[in-house]
Amino acid sequence: MATRLFRNARLVTMADPLDITPVERAAIISTNGRVVYAGAETGAPAIPPDGEVVDLGGRLVTPGLIDCHTHLVHGGNRAHEFELRLAGASYEEIARAGGGIVSTVTATRVAGEDGLVASALPRLDHLIAEGVTTVEVKSGYGLDLDSERAQLRAARRLAGERKVTVSTSFLGAHALPPEFKGDRAGYLALLRDKMLPAIAAEGVADCVDAFCETIAFSPEEVDDLFSAARRLGLKVRLHADQLSNLGGAALAARHGALSADHLEHTDEAGAASMAAAGTVAVLLPGAFYFIRETKLPPVDLFRQHGTRIAIATDCNPGTSPLTSPLLVMNMAATLFRLTVTECLAGMTIHAAAALGLAGETGSIERGKWCDLAVWDVDRPAELVYRMGFNPLAARYWRGE
Amino acid sequence: MATRLFRNARLVTMADPLDITPVERAAIISTNGRVVYAGAETGAPAIPPDGEVVDLGGRLVTPGLIDCHTHLVHGGNRAHEFELRLAGASYEEIARAGGGIVSTVTATRVAGEDGLVASALPRLDHLIAEGVTTVEVKSGYGLDLDSERAQLRAARRLAGERKVTVSTSFLGAHALPPEFKGDRAGYLALLRDKMLPAIAAEGVADCVDAFCETIAFSPEEVDDLFSAARRLGLKVRLHADQLSNLGGAALAARHGALSADHLEHTDEAGAASMAAAGTVAVLLPGAFYFIRETKLPPVDLFRQHGTRIAIATDCNPGTSPLTSPLLVMNMAATLFRLTVTECLAGMTIHAAAALGLAGETGSIERGKWCDLAVWDVDRPAELVYRMGFNPLAARYWRGE
Ligand SMILES: [Zn+2]
Ligand SMILES: [Zn+2]
Repeated sequence: MATRLFRNARLVTMADPLDITPVERAAIISTNGRVVYAGAETGAPAIPPDGEVVDLGGRLVTPGLIDCHTHLVHGGNRAHEFELRLAGASYEEIARAGGGIVSTVTATRVAGEDGLVASALPRLDHLIAEGVTTVEVKSGYGLDLDSERAQLRAARRLAGERKVTVSTSFLGAHALPPEFKGDRAGYLALLRDKMLPAIAAEGVADCVDAFCETIAFSPEEVDDLFSAARRLGLKVRLHADQLSNLGGAALAARHGALSADHLEHTDEAGAASMAAAGTVAVLLPGAFYFIRETKLPPVDLFRQHGTRIAIATDCNPGTSPLTSPLLVMNMAATLFRLTVTECLAGMTIHAAAALGLAGETGSIERGKWCDLAVWDVDRPAELVYRMGFNPLAARYWRGE
Repeated sequence: MATRLFRNARLVTMADPLDITPVERAAIISTNGRVVYAGAETGAPAIPPDGEVVDLGGRLVTPGLIDCHTHLVHGGNRAHEFELRLAGASYEEIARAGGGIVSTVTATRVAGEDGLVASALPRLDHLIAEGVTTVEVKSGYGLDLDSERAQLRAARRLAGERKVTVSTSFLGAHALPPEFKGDRAGYLALLRDKMLPAIAAEGVADCVDAFCETIAFSPEEVDDLFSAARRLGLKVRLHADQLSNLGGAALAARHGALSADHLEHTDEAGAASMAAAGTVAVLLPGAFYFIRETKLPPVDLFRQHGTRIAIATDCNPGTSPLTSPLLVMNMAATLFRLTVTECLAGMTIHAAAALGLAGETGSIERGKWCDLAVWDVDRPAELVYRMGFNPLAARYWRGE
C-alpha cells in the first residue's frame, strides 16, 4: 500500500480530547494505513515519488467516528410493537401480539448467519455514510450457543463486507431465554460453563457484556460471569444502572471493565470508582429518548471525577432503532447537555477507549490507523447542532 | 408527457387519513403528471401503447411527503451560539458574540438571492432524499422589503432547481428588525402599507404568516396585519401559542387561517375554533425537542374536536435545525404520542390541507398530482419507528 498525503485540511486530531480547534492548512500522511504525520502542512515530511496526494479542499477533518455500543446484528424489527403501543395497547396485548425481546430472539434464531449479515448491512451502511470507521456489535438475541455464535460470526463478517473495524461483545447475559423460564440457575450455568468457554475458544468475541438490571441479571450473577470471563482472558463491559441503581457502575469498575453503559441511575460512588478503574461511561441518549426516560445520567459527577464519557447509538430494535451517530451527538448535547467538545470526544477518542482500541484509533496521531472523516462544515459544532443532516464529504478507513 | 403505469406496489393512498393498510398488488397510472388511476392492479385500465411501465418490486408506496412549515431559506447558521450555550454562556454573552435571531437577519440580508438559493439547496436535497415532494418556505429573516423579497424569490427559484412543489409564506411579522427597535408602530405600518402590498403585487407569496407571542407580535397587531392580507386576497397562517397562550389559535381561526402552528399552549376553546374553521394544527416536535420544551401540545383536544393535525420540520437555524421528515414523524410519535397513522396523515394529506393544496397533492387519488414516495419497508410503521435511517427507494414528482 502506497503512502498517501492528505493535504489542505482543517484538522481536528482529538489527540487532546478537550481541544477541537482546527489546525489550519494541515496535512496527514498515511503509510500502510497508519498515520505517520498529522499537523501543519509546512512541517510535513516529503513523501515518496509514488505517493498519492489527496486535496481535501480546505474541509474539516476529524477522526472517523466510533459507534462503541450497538446491537446492529439482529433479526426482524419491532415497528409493529411501536405502532401498537402508540395506539394504546397494553404490555399484555403487545406480548400476546408477539412483541417484546422474545420476538427479536425468535427472529434472530431463524435468520441464520447469512440472514443476519444481510439485514445488518443497510444499518451499517447508514453508520458508514455518516463517517463511522469503527463499530462495536453485540450478540444477545440468540441466547443459545449456536445462535449467539451466529450473531458474533455475522458481526465479524461485516468487517469483510465493508471497510470498517468491527469489535464484538458476547452478550449471552442479555435476557433469560424463553426455554429457561423458571430456571435461571440452569441458564447461568450453561452460559458460564459451556457457552462462554466455546465463544472464547473460537475467538469470535473481543469482550463479554451483560445486562445488570432488576428485569435482567443481578449483580451477583454478573459478578460470577465476569469472573469466569476474566479467567478466560476476556475483557468485560456492562449495561449498568439504566432503570435502577443496583451498583452496576461500581461492579463494572471492580472488574476493570472497559466501559459501563447507560448509567442514568449511577451515583457518586459509582462515578468515582469508574474514574479510578479507567472504566469509560458510555451514555446512550437514543434509548433515553425512545423510552421517554426522565432520569438524566450524572454528567456533572463524571466531569468532577474525571470519568471519561463516550456516546453511542445503542442501535437495537426494542429501545433505540437509531443508526445516526450525528443524531447521537445532537441528542447528547440537547438531552444530556454535553458540550460540543464532549460529544466529539465521545464518538472518537473516548469511544476508542471504551473498546480498548485507544492505541489504534479514535484520534489522528502518529502510529494509529488513518481513520478519517471529512466534513463540509465550517466548524465542528455544526456536526452536533444539526438534526437529520449529513455533511460527510469523504471517509477514509486505514488510509483508504 | 407520456402515460406511466406504476405496477407491483403495496399502496397506501391516504385518501382516507385514518387508513394506512396497504392495498396489495396495486397500480397507479399517471398522465401528464396527474393520477388517473390508483387501486388494485386487476382493476387498472389499459394504458396507451407508448405508455411506460415502472415495476415497483412489491414496495410500499405512499404519497410524497409534504413539509408544510419550514424556514429553509436563510443565511448562516447558529452552531456557534448552540456551542456557547452548551458551554454555559448566558444569553447576554451570546448576544454579545453576535447570536440570536439578529445574527440570522444579518446573514440573510448579506447573502443575496443567489446566496440564499445556494445555501438552501443542500437542506432541500436532504428533504427530497427522504421523499419530500412539496415544501413550504417562509421569509422572515429579511425584515425589510428587499430582503424579504429576496428570500421569497429564492424560495420560488428552488422549484426550478429541483423537482419539488414550493409554497411560500411572507413572514415579515417574524421579529422587530433591529433598525426599528423602539418603533414597533413604525415597522408595523411599513409592513402593512408598503411591504405587504408590494409582496402581494409581485405574487411571490402564497400566504401571509406571523409570529404571535410575547417576544414577537401581539394578537392585536397580528389581527390588523391579517385583515390587510385578506383584503389583498391572501390566505393567512400563524405561529401561535408556542411559549404562552395569547389566544393565537382562536385568532387564526377567526381569520379562516389555513393553519395555526406550534400550539403547545393552546386551550380547548382554541382547538374547537380551529376545528370549526377548518384550520389545521401544525405541530413542530423538532422545535419542542431542541428548546427542551416540556409543555405538550393538546393532542387529545385536537382529536376530540376533530382538528386536523399536520407535522413539519420547522427547519430553521435558531430552534429547529432539522431537515429530516422521517425524524419529525418519530419525534411526533415519541414526544407527542401521535399514532403511526396520525404521523403519516400529518406529513401527507393534512399537510396538504395546511397549505391549501389538498385538492392537488397529499394523497394518491384521481385528479391529483402523481407525487409518490417508494419505500423499502414492510409496513408503514417502520417509517415512524426508526431514527436516522432512510429507506426511500424512489420518489416521483408529478409522475416523474
Ligand atoms: Zn445495549
Ligand atoms: Zn416557524
